[in-house]
Amino acid sequence: MYRIALVNGPNMNLLGKREVGVYGTETLEQLNRKLQALAAELGAELIPFQSNSEGAIIDFLHETGQTCDGIVINPASLSQSYPIAEAITGIQVPAVEVHMSNIYAREAWHSKSMIVPVCVGQVVGFGGGSYSLGLRGLLEHLRIQDTVRANNA
Amino acid sequence: MYRIALVNGPNMNLLGKREVGVYGTETLEQLNRKLQALAAELGAELIPFQSNSEGAIIDFLHETGQTCDGIVINPASLSQSYPIAEAITGIQVPAVEVHMSNIYAREAWHSKSMIVPVCVGQVVGFGGGSYSLGLRGLLEHLRIQDTVRANNA
Amino acid sequence: MYRIALVNGPNMNLLGKREVGVYGTETLEQLNRKLQALAAELGAELIPFQSNSEGAIIDFLHETGQTCDGIVINPASLSQSYPIAEAITGIQVPAVEVHMSNIYAREAWHSKSMIVPVCVGQVVGFGGGSYSLGLRGLLEHLRIQDTVRANNA
Amino acid sequence: MYRIALVNGPNMNLLGKREVGVYGTETLEQLNRKLQALAAELGAELIPFQSNSEGAIIDFLHETGQTCDGIVINPASLSQSYPIAEAITGIQVPAVEVHMSNIYAREAWHSKSMIVPVCVGQVVGFGGGSYSLGLRGLLEHLRIQDTVRANNA
Amino acid sequence: MYRIALVNGPNMNLLGKREVGVYGTETLEQLNRKLQALAAELGAELIPFQSNSEGAIIDFLHETGQTCDGIVINPASLSQSYPIAEAITGIQVPAVEVHMSNIYAREAWHSKSMIVPVCVGQVVGFGGGSYSLGLRGLLEHLRIQDTVRANNA
Amino acid sequence: MYRIALVNGPNMNLLGKREVGVYGTETLEQLNRKLQALAAELGAELIPFQSNSEGAIIDFLHETGQTCDGIVINPASLSQSYPIAEAITGIQVPAVEVHMSNIYAREAWHSKSMIVPVCVGQVVGFGGGSYSLGLRGLLEHLRIQDTVRANNA
Amino acid sequence: MYRIALVNGPNMNLLGKREVGVYGTETLEQLNRKLQALAAELGAELIPFQSNSEGAIIDFLHETGQTCDGIVINPASLSQSYPIAEAITGIQVPAVEVHMSNIYAREAWHSKSMIVPVCVGQVVGFGGGSYSLGLRGLLEHLRIQDTVRANNA
Amino acid sequence: MYRIALVNGPNMNLLGKREVGVYGTETLEQLNRKLQALAAELGAELIPFQSNSEGAIIDFLHETGQTCDGIVINPASLSQSYPIAEAITGIQVPAVEVHMSNIYAREAWHSKSMIVPVCVGQVVGFGGGSYSLGLRGLLEHLRIQDTVRANNA
Amino acid sequence: MYRIALVNGPNMNLLGKREVGVYGTETLEQLNRKLQALAAELGAELIPFQSNSEGAIIDFLHETGQTCDGIVINPASLSQSYPIAEAITGIQVPAVEVHMSNIYAREAWHSKSMIVPVCVGQVVGFGGGSYSLGLRGLLEHLRIQDTVRANNA
Amino acid sequence: MYRIALVNGPNMNLLGKREVGVYGTETLEQLNRKLQALAAELGAELIPFQSNSEGAIIDFLHETGQTCDGIVINPASLSQSYPIAEAITGIQVPAVEVHMSNIYAREAWHSKSMIVPVCVGQVVGFGGGSYSLGLRGLLEHLRIQDTVRANNA
Amino acid sequence: MYRIALVNGPNMNLLGKREVGVYGTETLEQLNRKLQALAAELGAELIPFQSNSEGAIIDFLHETGQTCDGIVINPASLSQSYPIAEAITGIQVPAVEVHMSNIYAREAWHSKSMIVPVCVGQVVGFGGGSYSLGLRGLLEHLRIQDTVRANNA
Amino acid sequence: MYRIALVNGPNMNLLGKREVGVYGTETLEQLNRKLQALAAELGAELIPFQSNSEGAIIDFLHETGQTCDGIVINPASLSQSYPIAEAITGIQVPAVEVHMSNIYAREAWHSKSMIVPVCVGQVVGFGGGSYSLGLRGLLEHLRIQDTVRANNA
Repeated sequence: MYRIALVNGPNMNLLGKREVGVYGTETLEQLNRKLQALAAELGAELIPFQSNSEGAIIDFLHETGQTCDGIVINPASLSQSYPIAEAITGIQVPAVEVHMSNIYAREAWHSKSMIVPVCVGQVVGFGGGSYSLGLRGLLEHLRIQDTVRANNA
Repeated sequence: MYRIALVNGPNMNLLGKREVGVYGTETLEQLNRKLQALAAELGAELIPFQSNSEGAIIDFLHETGQTCDGIVINPASLSQSYPIAEAITGIQVPAVEVHMSNIYAREAWHSKSMIVPVCVGQVVGFGGGSYSLGLRGLLEHLRIQDTVRANNA
Repeated sequence: MYRIALVNGPNMNLLGKREVGVYGTETLEQLNRKLQALAAELGAELIPFQSNSEGAIIDFLHETGQTCDGIVINPASLSQSYPIAEAITGIQVPAVEVHMSNIYAREAWHSKSMIVPVCVGQVVGFGGGSYSLGLRGLLEHLRIQDTVRANNA
Repeated sequence: MYRIALVNGPNMNLLGKREVGVYGTETLEQLNRKLQALAAELGAELIPFQSNSEGAIIDFLHETGQTCDGIVINPASLSQSYPIAEAITGIQVPAVEVHMSNIYAREAWHSKSMIVPVCVGQVVGFGGGSYSLGLRGLLEHLRIQDTVRANNA
Repeated sequence: MYRIALVNGPNMNLLGKREVGVYGTETLEQLNRKLQALAAELGAELIPFQSNSEGAIIDFLHETGQTCDGIVINPASLSQSYPIAEAITGIQVPAVEVHMSNIYAREAWHSKSMIVPVCVGQVVGFGGGSYSLGLRGLLEHLRIQDTVRANNA
Repeated sequence: MYRIALVNGPNMNLLGKREVGVYGTETLEQLNRKLQALAAELGAELIPFQSNSEGAIIDFLHETGQTCDGIVINPASLSQSYPIAEAITGIQVPAVEVHMSNIYAREAWHSKSMIVPVCVGQVVGFGGGSYSLGLRGLLEHLRIQDTVRANNA
Repeated sequence: MYRIALVNGPNMNLLGKREVGVYGTETLEQLNRKLQALAAELGAELIPFQSNSEGAIIDFLHETGQTCDGIVINPASLSQSYPIAEAITGIQVPAVEVHMSNIYAREAWHSKSMIVPVCVGQVVGFGGGSYSLGLRGLLEHLRIQDTVRANNA
Repeated sequence: MYRIALVNGPNMNLLGKREVGVYGTETLEQLNRKLQALAAELGAELIPFQSNSEGAIIDFLHETGQTCDGIVINPASLSQSYPIAEAITGIQVPAVEVHMSNIYAREAWHSKSMIVPVCVGQVVGFGGGSYSLGLRGLLEHLRIQDTVRANNA
Repeated sequence: MYRIALVNGPNMNLLGKREVGVYGTETLEQLNRKLQALAAELGAELIPFQSNSEGAIIDFLHETGQTCDGIVINPASLSQSYPIAEAITGIQVPAVEVHMSNIYAREAWHSKSMIVPVCVGQVVGFGGGSYSLGLRGLLEHLRIQDTVRANNA
Repeated sequence: MYRIALVNGPNMNLLGKREVGVYGTETLEQLNRKLQALAAELGAELIPFQSNSEGAIIDFLHETGQTCDGIVINPASLSQSYPIAEAITGIQVPAVEVHMSNIYAREAWHSKSMIVPVCVGQVVGFGGGSYSLGLRGLLEHLRIQDTVRANNA
Repeated sequence: MYRIALVNGPNMNLLGKREVGVYGTETLEQLNRKLQALAAELGAELIPFQSNSEGAIIDFLHETGQTCDGIVINPASLSQSYPIAEAITGIQVPAVEVHMSNIYAREAWHSKSMIVPVCVGQVVGFGGGSYSLGLRGLLEHLRIQDTVRANNA
Repeated sequence: MYRIALVNGPNMNLLGKREVGVYGTETLEQLNRKLQALAAELGAELIPFQSNSEGAIIDFLHETGQTCDGIVINPASLSQSYPIAEAITGIQVPAVEVHMSNIYAREAWHSKSMIVPVCVGQVVGFGGGSYSLGLRGLLEHLRIQDTVRANNA
């Protein structure tokens, strides 16, 4: 059973509470529960975390994240953070970046992520669905890696 | 049952035949069949198409694509094609862009797509898995749209 | 009587069929007939051509275009095509570039044409009217050239 | 009968008097008379104006221009003037920008106009013919607008 | 009576204690008291906050800030913070950005704020006076909005 | 009693007469009278001036402006004028730049002022209120300067 | 005996027929025959191909090109084509890029090739001689490779 | 005897009256008289002109300037004016650009002149001496031209 | 005896625990002890601090740092932090920036530090040795300053 | 019999002595002898020269180079030298630039030559073979020029 | 009597010997003699120097140049040399940069000098006359400096 | 005992003789002797060299430098020299770049070194101390390398 850290960056705690016309009425807590159910169904455990502070996200990655098998991260407006990118590199755990909106169809600064180059892949534009697709992709990636390792052993 | 066009751009016909160290030994035909099976399982029909010619891809989008409910497209090295982007806009069918590799971890030109801004979303980095995730995301998107329309009706 | 080639680039075959809120309901065939009538009135014959393929446009310019006295071309989203620009230079026939929309009031990429520097002039922003103004301007240009030549002879 | 303001920017008063090898021997006065005749023929009155001063052009647009139905403007070397662009926006009268030469085939600074984005369209490269094409296009544009308004009324 | 959050970013706690030759000897506490007095006089309550941490500023905006009627914020060297800009957008409370120095007369990086585009307006260059002017402007803005709402009701 | 020059740049004479949906129905004359009343209340005299011509604005700054104690200037679309910036530097009178709209939330060219670096400060985004805040800030600045001078004497 | 594919891009079919003042009167057919003779003399067979279509060139590279020992390619105005560059990478056959003119002494866009980084080398500026030098260099390169392989075997 | 127009741009009328610590106490009138004396000594007549208005400078160049044999121009902060550059080109009279300060040792915008490319040459950095050197250089240039013409006659 | 603050930025707590192939097996605690021993030998006391949070580093600089005689700082991936740079400026304590790797031989973003311009100097590329060299250089700098002050007293 | 100067720039004297894994074991002396033999075979004499100093290369071009019929030059890391480019222009002798490696497949700075625009052509990527191809191309170029001259005589 | 060093950079020794159509038939030796005569007439001695080597020019500036009262330097294609600029700064002798051609009317690279910011001024475009104007300007500059010093003494 | 080459670039011979207010009164000879003493103390021999000529520095690196164990180099204003960078790469001797001033706190061009990417590390900002720190770092680097080699042997 895989352990997956689910990291949400700044302002994601407002989800479902503000700007509901844009992001819908589902709160982060509700989304987390739905994703935990999906994870269980796919044979994984999900540990959710949210912070508005870059430093706290790095601390979480160092502590909880590096004992996990993979990371799903929505850095939100911190997608240009080198320290978070280096934290992911440092702990050497496979990560997937997700964004609810299609960041490439928005203003230029949204479409530049420093985190995606150190990730396995990225999913954008499917609203809450970006998380579930990212989770599916990450688990599939982990299973392929395990198979390769088993074959090589 | 949704009809989905699956478009592959230049050089994708070499998949599984050349550079197998990088892209694996699965051919495009094998990948297409696997995706058609997944589509069937998710209640959809998949019409695959590949061409090395920008013009032929646009012709296909105009003919077959615009009678479909959605499009999954891997433009490959044509990701900077304005004519394909405008074809998608023109036929007004929801599209999802996918790439097998993490294009944001490669040379700069790979990471600039003119097609993603006219798409629902994008999935990159999961190898053949990018297609299945993109297909899942697209079908979910279509179902939500239908629900919204039904509720409004 | 002047022979004029009328070239339309990618997606222009959708004219009047899709996005009618933006571009109106007149189809390319209807527009072509109207322009042929205007050409006849102004003492010219118009040979219309449309393709979604850069290569096919170049082939047309080499074959039909170079036996004409002038060219009216709406390259649409291929306005940045060096190969088409070089085809016009190569066949040495006076050309006029037209665009239905005001490309300079749209996104940056629309406003950069590689074709206009090898043309006599350019008309943008008058909808279908851009073609008729471009045709008038081209014919006037040809008449002035002929007069100069006659005077020099 | 439409009233059209015809605005010419800096150095256009030298037309036909200097650099005749490049611009021909027709003076601005002669060109104005020819365009007034064409306007009359097309059911319009033309009020010509020329100044070397940006401020005087804006004053003219505020006074005479905003009581007209449309504007044909050759800003010449003031094509990068934000104040003139804002004057056109401010008086809310449809305008067409024209240039005698093909500004896109000249040095880079010529090809960047701040005025074209607030205009209906633009005609370049047909010498004195750019004005008559611009005038035709503007009048056609006004007639279509009036028809639409009449139909909606 | 309006409730206004007053936010000061990194290093502003050094005010009046260090570099007094540049910024004067008034401390942040003294400045806060003076502004609270002005607020009271203008019929408003001021809740001051300072932090050197981006995350803590966002937390404050989410908690205290979003129950206020308006925000006066001097982001100091965090003026390029997308997360703070998105926090302001997220809580949908009118904000005014202020800077003690004329940031546009300093090095280039000072003059680029990501926060001002999501604010009502900005005041720079008046030392401690920038805060009082920003407060006055914000309160006037709130009163005009209330009047408009009352008239529309 | 301070004498303050109030300078308005191109197209500001249209205020309240055109685009009233955007800028309201208050005319420049009405705004000027309101600001003169505020100035009187704050112990100052206001000399208003408007021109669409850069040269006329510089002439005014040289003549009237340099006998004043301070300048409030809304350069409007001439905010990139080096000659006006150098005129302010040349006459060595403290100036404050104001803009009715939040220029940093508009197109890029609006947000680059050559005048603000030679000013005491800048106020943007408060509509007509930008002028009164700018006037208050300028008068406060002059009083502080006088106090410093008196103390040093 | 080496098999070499000789690929010519858009507009090269006009060689010797148009712009003879610039490129001479030798046609592409004549040039091909001369190069075939040289190839024979150097112990190689040359398979010539020309197309104005990017897609057709890629198809040719996939079909004929990948059964050859090497490629001489003059992409002409398609030197910035990523799809052609990836086709060369995909089929893993050594290629040499040639241009008749000195592309580095022309306008900036000519001097940027996306194809040369995936080639063995490049020859420019020797007219038709660029092809023969490129062919010589390619054959020498193949012989050295064969020698190394033989020595390692 | 050569007739030379001496043109000074915006704010040069403040010379010797303001910022005397930087530019000295010599006024423009005194400088003009000194240059007229030098001109007389070198066999030339000098017609001085100063304006803060771009339009007025162009008018002067069209009227007085084009009946002169040469022009010495200090455009001051209008050195980036395309309209003035085109006025000089238009009247086809040899011109020399001068600046009192070393514009290449100041901020970047000072060091970019649109006028120098249409001039014979440029002199910068010698204070009032830049004018006398520019005048000498211009007169020498005119004499050499006359000699060449005489020899060719 | 000098008091020196030793500041380490994000992810430096992973030193010796992860990526040991790149950075060796020495942990931050071991490195700190070695540097404290060297400091003692050179007549100085070293106060080590590490945090993944920008705000916490600024707090430390304000509290402990500003009672020290000097600072050795490895900002790691926060080398582009303006807030930290301003904190160093604000507390007016001499600082030296160090990096274990040669940041100028890595990706472009590594080689741009906002902190080095407010430091005495910088040492990069000597692994753990960068700290000891930076410490030596800082102490020598402090001694020279003290000598100069003593001589001036 | 043609006299050809063969110029090698900085560090080329290390050829075959250092970095033999990259550049092989053939020394510059051995390469020179091989090229002299080829030259003799093709009816030409080769005068080799190498220097690490830009000035010495220019001196050689002025002295020996300008009495030759052509130049083969590998500027190595001096390919961005304007003085060498101007020396080639100054002596008006046809030159060919060669590089052993494919400079367009290396770091960006390698691929920018200031010398190639003043040359007949360029050959890159064939190791020592670049020299022999460049020599062949240059001699062919000289023969064609002579033929043209003879025909015109 | 002032001692002035006259420095000429790379390729200037070809003056009057090559490209005489462009630069005339006067050799550097003849120009030097003419300038020495002018210097004598103006009460100065001129020490001419030319080299194609940057290092030799710096050596000359260190040796002869720093015992002179001023320097006239035509760096030619070395106008972007930082080492020469720093040599001038280092020896602290007033310098004037001259160019025979109008470098601002040529290709972009010509118009960027690293030397002019450390000079008193610059003269360009008057052919050989640029030297005599530069010499006059430099001597006048030295005389004014001496007068100021004498007055202050 | 290690042999270390100490290379100083252009204008460093002026050290202690000119601009003593900036760089102090210690001459290069005195500095060299001090560094030789330190080297001896640390068990190394130092061979100093200075030249104003890029070519001479490369010659020295090829001759003396490549028989040394390491290089300390202050390239001064030649820090952007590709030929020197390639000489260091070519001779494959570990090098350390040093600068007396903090080059990252000066004008932009100072802070871009082409040499540092091919060095072990860099020390800037400690005056003459930069050399001794660089020397210490280099010797420590050599000792660590030797230990690794000994352990592997």
